Amino acid sequence: MTFRLKHYHAPNFNEARFQAAPEATLVPCPKDAVAPEGYHATSIFPEYFKIGGTWLLAAESRMDSVPVYEDGSVSIREFRRLKQGDLVVCGRTEDASEGIYVHTNGFDEPGAASDADSFAFRTGRSRETAFSRDYDELYELLRHEREHGYVVWVMGPAFTFNGFSRRAFARLIHNGYVDAVLAGNALATHDLEGALFHTALGQDIDTQENRPMGHYHHMDTINKARYYGSIRKLIEAEHIDNGIMHALETNHVPYVLAGSIRDDGPLPGVYRNAYEAQDAMRAHVSRATTVICMATTLHSIATGNMTPSFRVMPDGTVRQVYFYCVDIAEFAVNKLADRGSLASRGIVTNVQDFIAHVARGLDLDV
Amino acid sequence: MTFRLKHYHAPNFNEARFQAAPEATLVPCPKDAVAPEGYHATSIFPEYFKIGGTWLLAAESRMDSVPVYEDGSVSIREFRRLKQGDLVVCGRTEDASEGIYVHTNGFDEPGAASDADSFAFRTGRSRETAFSRDYDELYELLRHEREHGYVVWVMGPAFTFNGFSRRAFARLIHNGYVDAVLAGNALATHDLEGALFHTALGQDIDTQENRPMGHYHHMDTINKARYYGSIRKLIEAEHIDNGIMHALETNHVPYVLAGSIRDDGPLPGVYRNAYEAQDAMRAHVSRATTVICMATTLHSIATGNMTPSFRVMPDGTVRQVYFYCVDIAEFAVNKLADRGSLASRGIVTNVQDFIAHVARGLDLDV
Amino acid sequence: MTFRLKHYHAPNFNEARFQAAPEATLVPCPKDAVAPEGYHATSIFPEYFKIGGTWLLAAESRMDSVPVYEDGSVSIREFRRLKQGDLVVCGRTEDASEGIYVHTNGFDEPGAASDADSFAFRTGRSRETAFSRDYDELYELLRHEREHGYVVWVMGPAFTFNGFSRRAFARLIHNGYVDAVLAGNALATHDLEGALFHTALGQDIDTQENRPMGHYHHMDTINKARYYGSIRKLIEAEHIDNGIMHALETNHVPYVLAGSIRDDGPLPGVYRNAYEAQDAMRAHVSRATTVICMATTLHSIATGNMTPSFRVMPDGTVRQVYFYCVDIAEFAVNKLADRGSLASRGIVTNVQDFIAHVARGLDLDV
Amino acid sequence: MTFRLKHYHAPNFNEARFQAAPEATLVPCPKDAVAPEGYHATSIFPEYFKIGGTWLLAAESRMDSVPVYEDGSVSIREFRRLKQGDLVVCGRTEDASEGIYVHTNGFDEPGAASDADSFAFRTGRSRETAFSRDYDELYELLRHEREHGYVVWVMGPAFTFNGFSRRAFARLIHNGYVDAVLAGNALATHDLEGALFHTALGQDIDTQENRPMGHYHHMDTINKARYYGSIRKLIEAEHIDNGIMHALETNHVPYVLAGSIRDDGPLPGVYRNAYEAQDAMRAHVSRATTVICMATTLHSIATGNMTPSFRVMPDGTVRQVYFYCVDIAEFAVNKLADRGSLASRGIVTNVQDFIAHVARGLDLDV
Repeated sequence: MTFRLKHYHAPNFNEARFQAAPEATLVPCPKDAVAPEGYHATSIFPEYFKIGGTWLLAAESRMDSVPVYEDGSVSIREFRRLKQGDLVVCGRTEDASEGIYVHTNGFDEPGAASDADSFAFRTGRSRETAFSRDYDELYELLRHEREHGYVVWVMGPAFTFNGFSRRAFARLIHNGYVDAVLAGNALATHDLEGALFHTALGQDIDTQENRPMGHYHHMDTINKARYYGSIRKLIEAEHIDNGIMHALETNHVPYVLAGSIRDDGPLPGVYRNAYEAQDAMRAHVSRATTVICMATTLHSIATGNMTPSFRVMPDGTVRQVYFYCVDIAEFAVNKLADRGSLASRGIVTNVQDFIAHVARGLDLDV
Repeated sequence: MTFRLKHYHAPNFNEARFQAAPEATLVPCPKDAVAPEGYHATSIFPEYFKIGGTWLLAAESRMDSVPVYEDGSVSIREFRRLKQGDLVVCGRTEDASEGIYVHTNGFDEPGAASDADSFAFRTGRSRETAFSRDYDELYELLRHEREHGYVVWVMGPAFTFNGFSRRAFARLIHNGYVDAVLAGNALATHDLEGALFHTALGQDIDTQENRPMGHYHHMDTINKARYYGSIRKLIEAEHIDNGIMHALETNHVPYVLAGSIRDDGPLPGVYRNAYEAQDAMRAHVSRATTVICMATTLHSIATGNMTPSFRVMPDGTVRQVYFYCVDIAEFAVNKLADRGSLASRGIVTNVQDFIAHVARGLDLDV
Repeated sequence: MTFRLKHYHAPNFNEARFQAAPEATLVPCPKDAVAPEGYHATSIFPEYFKIGGTWLLAAESRMDSVPVYEDGSVSIREFRRLKQGDLVVCGRTEDASEGIYVHTNGFDEPGAASDADSFAFRTGRSRETAFSRDYDELYELLRHEREHGYVVWVMGPAFTFNGFSRRAFARLIHNGYVDAVLAGNALATHDLEGALFHTALGQDIDTQENRPMGHYHHMDTINKARYYGSIRKLIEAEHIDNGIMHALETNHVPYVLAGSIRDDGPLPGVYRNAYEAQDAMRAHVSRATTVICMATTLHSIATGNMTPSFRVMPDGTVRQVYFYCVDIAEFAVNKLADRGSLASRGIVTNVQDFIAHVARGLDLDV
Repeated sequence: MTFRLKHYHAPNFNEARFQAAPEATLVPCPKDAVAPEGYHATSIFPEYFKIGGTWLLAAESRMDSVPVYEDGSVSIREFRRLKQGDLVVCGRTEDASEGIYVHTNGFDEPGAASDADSFAFRTGRSRETAFSRDYDELYELLRHEREHGYVVWVMGPAFTFNGFSRRAFARLIHNGYVDAVLAGNALATHDLEGALFHTALGQDIDTQENRPMGHYHHMDTINKARYYGSIRKLIEAEHIDNGIMHALETNHVPYVLAGSIRDDGPLPGVYRNAYEAQDAMRAHVSRATTVICMATTLHSIATGNMTPSFRVMPDGTVRQVYFYCVDIAEFAVNKLADRGSLASRGIVTNVQDFIAHVARGLDLDV
């Protein structure tokens, strides 16, 4: 099997329905962070707006946000980022009749079954679903993306609890399969705890043995990092030479650590403001061609909310964005994976096993 | 059954081991937000520190924080709140040998089985555990607390998805069983959506029918609230007369809405900074005599982290703090409930059913 | 709300497609328990077969079985019950073109949305679904069925682990809401253990306390029952006056206890042969107008397999069969409830809470 | 790491408490399948009974059964297998004081931490537990057992839903790692469906695509097998050359297919009587040195009930029996794995991933 991206079929705007369509309605925001009544909210699909006689595609989209017209193009903004007077597209139809067109089947092969027909194929991922085809496709995809794409990994702390999976993910970073990591304070803390104490929450990451006074380890880790002033300085000062954070820093792979009310500490560099964290996350998601969410409901849903089904590449072509959600709970997987996009997949398993499979499937030596 | 609080047995500091104990070691913080090496970290139990010849109890405690001596008393602070020069108790023993004593069995009846012996009684809550005794005790407890305590409810949004449970919780508020609510943006949003549109996420909260354009409802709700400027003003302007937020505002019950990266909006009044939210939450938890966490892993763990097993009452007496965690997933319940305190309970069920039971058990008309 | 059964709309066999349809093909079985090649397998819907110029409805149906023509009517048989020479309907179309018609929408209101359109309404039951409407409808249904129907309850042992839910279900029996119970050895064993020792698996059913030597209780219970020779004799000899088995025996409500490889004992009266147990279960399911499966994957799936979506009543009318599946795991609920029938419902909760709600909703004094 | 069995330390029967102990009490059964009052019920540990002045070890044990003295030795029997007059050991103490000694720590290293101390190490397996050490030990164990042991695999049908895992398990059989398989009708049915139709429940086992009329495939499979008369004859007649059943038959590896009320068909050779199935299963479990239960609650609990923690080898030495339970649900894993034996392990993951890991860990080419 050789990986092949689907071709994007733009709407044919010469069709009568598009030609006859009215201009989209633009209404200024009445206040900062407040949309005008009747605003249009976006989906995960490519959306076109007829303005000045032209159908404009909003390039960097995301769902549940509003289209703002500015300087000849349409950008998609979260409500909180609106400014008084911003011109927002209003209208809640999607079929061009109000100058708004949501293009849900741009990646369908002409003559092939539509998304709707193949719906059954995607839904109802459970512990009994056969996932090996998904794995095989994922290996192909990642080899492709290493050369051509931007892969964002969204991670819960479980990886750091196990020496093997911690090493496996570090190998992925060292080998160029990771373009950005979105995570929380706990991932970084327990990974660094693993480097300093060979434990996670006080338990040996290889033997599972509880270490004496081990419950101090994560606090000591954070306290040291705060003493040095940054994760990078901690790594240097303590001569850390292994783990996920070390791999990220060494390879200059960017990461966003979003703070939460559950945090101890936090580590230096963790975002304190949830919405600034959202902005930092979306900066990576906007460039993403593949997003892989693993074992974190909070960060996965947050990322899923801001991930569209497509991306406009620098050369102007439109390609699919692949979205994976990996979790041991069907509830979490189906909540995320049920996005009505063919490029969205859920995998129900233990993420430690998942990452071990991926590392092996990519022939990395772990 | 009549509810009865357990008596607290303070340590007998006339015993030789306490008399012979050295003073606790106090070391100044080297920088802001950094503890000195060897700092002592707290547990959920009452802790005493020998300073100036006296064993001082830290009144408002929480786990994984540090004891700071100041003006003759010991206060328990999160690392991030430390200031350079603050005098922190150092030492990692708990048996008085370093002037630190952690009192784990202060609520045991003399001669009765210790906490350790009755451990099996509390662990392993599952779907097959018999919970009716827990319910009966909870009704008794809540009747007691209405007169004598401070009950903090920690809630995920599931309550608002169902008209009945939304009404049931509002009845609890109107009848004085709720002293504070800790929740997130989603709880308030979908509750207000219920008031404005009779839906949650676009689905009718009584009939489960999907409403046309229903996916706009939560965004419209937030947008209106932002237009008016606050939740209170939204309630007034739109003449909202039902639901949880209405009940909280009407009865002047305080609430903390902690923002997260998962949020749309957010609503006005939601905390943007995760650690300011922690501080606001702890202000209520410090007064709490009972904490009930329901159907939210994020907020429950956050609250559990800051809830001690005891509280020093205004009259100086020490009483147990009751801690409940209610969730449909054993994983979540056991993560929270396994705190080594007799006053901690896990209940594995659907929280909509839980709150209906509680409302009926308290003879509220729902 | 007053409960109302939907009207059944039989196909109009005067339509051309039915008139023009060929006779169904009948082929004799080549051996005992072996169907001819090309056999037709049944669904949960009413199915009609054109034989001798008449469209015959198979009255007592079930899925994944075969239609056998005999003495002017069609009966639906499990493969294992076929005899060499039995005349089996062959053909795998469902649209009358081979003389076979599967009537999937007989209960739709004319002009109303079809089953297919309302699909979204039924799927994806989760812990976050609003269930109070389902509860209300269930109370109405059960009041109706007490007078007019036949309610089969399928139960796992969890009810017996809790004094309250054990009493609640016994009240349902005493008040006429239970026409048959399908369960396993464990339900009966732990219910009788509750009567003899006030425990289930050695734990007090009210206080949850472990009793000394409590792990002997279930074995002692079974051993006593075997000594006396039957459950009825055990109840009499030991003067048992409470519990589920006592209520069933006292009210002459039939029950089927199907043995499994997981059993201790078993109790006298438990079916040793799995397929004889199936036959005994189907004898009740064939009469059922409502089936409620609770907290048992094994017995629920077994019952679901043999429950059609309709029943031909003694007066010849066709009515819906209501099917509920109640479990704390979405996986189990959705596996059962996803049957494509409007009268099928899944409820995700702890069954102890469920039965408490039902008892209260029916105004029973528990 | 080289695998090493623990040494068994038999009790020192020269100690005073054993010398002074009375003879065990033997009481005849009052009826067939009924134990005398006060019978002793067995545990998973080695148990010794003082009879005729000698402490006799019951060699083939299992829990919740009774010791019967016959012809100079003690055998452990299920209640249902007792005959009137059988001499049963009575007494419910375990410390030699009634001539009964339960030896719970025979595999502890002298001077090492006892089972009790290392309790924390074993409990609370969750999705967040680090399992790679368990995997490594399992690979070592299986290599050892291929030469020296008897490995019983207990399987749910999930393996057959995925082409890869179906092949992986077949490779394990072909390479000598499987001494017996305990499963149900569904495993065999869907494995053979995979061979005949390349589907499981109508879905392609490699591509997940639903095949037209695919819901007939499992019924057609069973019907064919019944036509031919046995699974072996089906494999021969249809020239099946792949899959689990093919591997078992080809390599003359015995298997037990226990029937259940959930079954379609069943296939020829499936046990209809649950207790005869238990006997057939125990015949393998009695020889087992390692038992691995995967993705089946029913068969896993059934097998767990009859698996002791030790085995007396043909040369008279006593060795540990390793017991693994692999499931995606913590509830299932902890129910099984919490057996108080150091050789018992739970792994929380998708079993398809598990078996792929095991096959690779054993360097099998899949």
